[in-house]
Amino acid sequence: MHIKKQRLLTPGPTPLLPRALHAMMASDIHHRTQDFIKLYPVVLRDLKEVYGTQNDVLILVSSGTGALEASVSNFFSEGDKVVVCSAGKFGERWVELAKAFRLNAVVLTADYGDVVAPQRVEQALQENPDAKGVFFQASETSTGAAHDVRAIAEIVKKTGALCIVDAITGLGTMPLDIDGWGLDIVVGGSQKAFMIPPGLAFVSVSAKAWEMNAAAKLPRLYFDLKKEKKMADKGESAWTPNVSHILALAEALKYIKEIGMDNLVQNAMLLARATREAAAALGLELFAPGSPSSSVTAIKAPAGMDSGEIVKGFRNQFGSIIANGQGTMKGQIFRIAHLGYFDFPDLFAMVAELELILHSKGIPVEFGKGVAAVQRVYAEAVAGRQS
Amino acid sequence: MHIKKQRLLTPGPTPLLPRALHAMMASDIHHRTQDFIKLYPVVLRDLKEVYGTQNDVLILVSSGTGALEASVSNFFSEGDKVVVCSAGKFGERWVELAKAFRLNAVVLTADYGDVVAPQRVEQALQENPDAKGVFFQASETSTGAAHDVRAIAEIVKKTGALCIVDAITGLGTMPLDIDGWGLDIVVGGSQKAFMIPPGLAFVSVSAKAWEMNAAAKLPRLYFDLKKEKKMADKGESAWTPNVSHILALAEALKYIKEIGMDNLVQNAMLLARATREAAAALGLELFAPGSPSSSVTAIKAPAGMDSGEIVKGFRNQFGSIIANGQGTMKGQIFRIAHLGYFDFPDLFAMVAELELILHSKGIPVEFGKGVAAVQRVYAEAVAGRQS
Repeated sequence: MHIKKQRLLTPGPTPLLPRALHAMMASDIHHRTQDFIKLYPVVLRDLKEVYGTQNDVLILVSSGTGALEASVSNFFSEGDKVVVCSAGKFGERWVELAKAFRLNAVVLTADYGDVVAPQRVEQALQENPDAKGVFFQASETSTGAAHDVRAIAEIVKKTGALCIVDAITGLGTMPLDIDGWGLDIVVGGSQKAFMIPPGLAFVSVSAKAWEMNAAAKLPRLYFDLKKEKKMADKGESAWTPNVSHILALAEALKYIKEIGMDNLVQNAMLLARATREAAAALGLELFAPGSPSSSVTAIKAPAGMDSGEIVKGFRNQFGSIIANGQGTMKGQIFRIAHLGYFDFPDLFAMVAELELILHSKGIPVEFGKGVAAVQRVYAEAVAGRQS
Repeated sequence: MHIKKQRLLTPGPTPLLPRALHAMMASDIHHRTQDFIKLYPVVLRDLKEVYGTQNDVLILVSSGTGALEASVSNFFSEGDKVVVCSAGKFGERWVELAKAFRLNAVVLTADYGDVVAPQRVEQALQENPDAKGVFFQASETSTGAAHDVRAIAEIVKKTGALCIVDAITGLGTMPLDIDGWGLDIVVGGSQKAFMIPPGLAFVSVSAKAWEMNAAAKLPRLYFDLKKEKKMADKGESAWTPNVSHILALAEALKYIKEIGMDNLVQNAMLLARATREAAAALGLELFAPGSPSSSVTAIKAPAGMDSGEIVKGFRNQFGSIIANGQGTMKGQIFRIAHLGYFDFPDLFAMVAELELILHSKGIPVEFGKGVAAVQRVYAEAVAGRQS
C-alpha cells in the first residue's frame, strides 16, 4: 500500500481554489446586514466583468439546472415554439425542460460526440419563423463536443428568437463574446471554471431577453429573474443567499481577474490540446474528434475494455477521481477535464497514471510517451509566448 | 500565462494532509479543560504507537531544533564528553548545541554527501570510554544521506553512552526499531512525515536516558522533559500547548495508523528509489549515491548550471516549491522530497517538470524518459505486491 491522495479531477465539481475554500470559513455574516450588502455588489460586478458583458448577470442559489429552468420559465409562455439542439445528456435536459414547461419544441438532435451544425439551426428558424428561442450547449460536457456558438448566435441574432446558451462548462474554457455575438442568456455554474463547490448558478440576461420576460407567462417564483435583478440592484439577493459560496466566489473571481479570463480560457484550450495529443500518442481514439471541447476531453476506452475499468484504475491505483461516460456512453468513454483550476502538472500526472492503468490491463504502452506529448505542447506554447 | 498551482514539495514543511488542516479549525477549546484533557492522551498514545516504542514520547511546542536542544540539556552536565557525528548542516547543529551547552564534543565529520561510518563511532567510543552520548542524524536532510542507524546504535548500546538520534526526517522514511536497536532519544518534527505544519517537536526517551536525566545538571526550564512527562502522565502539557497543531496531529496520526507506519516508510523508500532511477535516466548525478536517504533525494545540477536555476524553474514555470542546497551546497544541488504526504502522481509531475526545466535551459532531454523510469518502479512494485 502506498499513499494515494484524493484528487478531484472531474468536469464538475472541479478542483477547488484553496483561497476560495478558506474564505468559506468566514460565513458567519448575516445576509441582510451591511456585512453582506457591502460584499454582494462587488461579487456581482466582478462576475459581470469575468462574463465580459454589459448584460445583467444574476446569481441563483441552485445547481446549474436551476438556471437552465430559469432560462425557460422567465422568457416564454405555454405553447411557445422554440428550437432545441440536443447532442448529449445536457441537450436532452433542455428538451426535458421544454417539455415540462409545455413549450412547443422543434428538436434538432445530433449523435453523441457530434454537434448540431449552424446550418441546421438556420434551416429550422426559416421553417419556424415563429420560434421564440434557440437553446443549445456551448460545450456538451457529456460528450466533450463544442457547438459553434458564434455561428449559431449570428443566425439567431437576425431573428426575433432568443439565443439561450448553456455555458455551464463553456464559460472559462472557450471564447464567448456575449455582447458581440448576441448571446441573450448565458448560464454558468459555480463548480466549473469558477473553481468553487457546487451550489450557485449564474445567468446573464440581455435587453432583448428582458423584453421577452415582460410578456412571458410561465409560472415562476423562486427563479423569478426580474425579482432577482430588482434585489441585485439594491445589493441584495431575492432569497437567502448561500453566504459561504458567495465568499468563496468573491475570492475565485479575484483570482480569475488576476490571471485574466482570456488566459483562463487559453489554459483550458492548451490542456485540452495537450490531452488530445497524448491520446493520439497512446493510440487512443477521441469521442468527439470533429468539434472537441476544451472543457473536457472524452476518450474512448480501448476496444473490448469497459471505460469503467480505467475510471476505477484512476481511483484505486492513484486516488484520482475522473469521469466515466454518462447514460449510454457509460463504459465507452472516460473524460479528462480541463475547466478551471487545472494546470500542467495535473495533466502530467493524469497521463502518467493513464499509461500505467492501460499497462496494468495488458495494453501495450510505452511509458512516458503520452506524457512527452503533453510536454511538447507545453514547451511549444512557452516558446511561442517568449518569441 | 497559464494556471500554476502552488505546490509545497520541500523536505519540510511538507505537503499537508487536508483532513489535518481542516481539523485545525476546531481550535476553540481551552487546554486546561476536559475538551483538551480528553484529546491529549489519545494523541500521545497514537504518537507512541506510530513511533513504535515502549519508551515515553513527549510533545514540545517548538521547532525540531527545540527538541534537539532538549536532547542535550536534559541528559548532560557541563564538560561531559560526547561523540557527535557531523555530515551536513544538521550534524553541524548538533555540534553548535554541544558547544553552546559546554559539552566536550569529539566531532566525527564526514564530507557533505557522505556519512560517518559506524566503525568510526566504534573507534571513537573505544578511545573515549567516558563518552556519555553519541549524537547523529538518521537522515541528514541537507545532503540526502542516511546514517546506518542500526549499526551505530548497536555499537552505542554496548557502552554507557546514550544513543541520540535526530530522526526529524528519518521517522516515517526509514525503518527505526527504537526498542530493538536501543535508540535512547529519537527526535521528530510535525512538519515532516507527520504531514502537518511546523510548530511541534517530538522526543522519545528511554529508561537509560531517564537515569542520565536524574544526574544531568545543564540548565533547562521550558524544555524540562521530566516536567513534561509528569504533566503528560496526567493528560496535560507542561506549558500552553499549540492546540490547533494538536488537533491536526490527532488527525494525521489517525491517517498514518490507517495506512500503517511501515507502509508510510515503504512509500517514501519507493518514491526515493523511483527518483534515483529518474535521475539516472536523465543523466543527472546524485549527491549522496553511497547512502541515499529516503526522505529526500539530493541531485546535482548539470555541470555549469546553478541549481537555483532549477529551483526557480519549478517555481516560475509550474508553481512547485522544491528545495535548493543549504550552505555551501546552495547552487550545487536541488532536493526532491519524499517524506510524508507524497504520492506517485506528485512524482510523475515533478519529474515531467524537471525534464521541461532542463530542456528550457538548453540541456538535451528526451521528454518522458525520467517519468518512464518512475513508472517502471511503480509498475514493478505493484506487480511485486500482487504476486
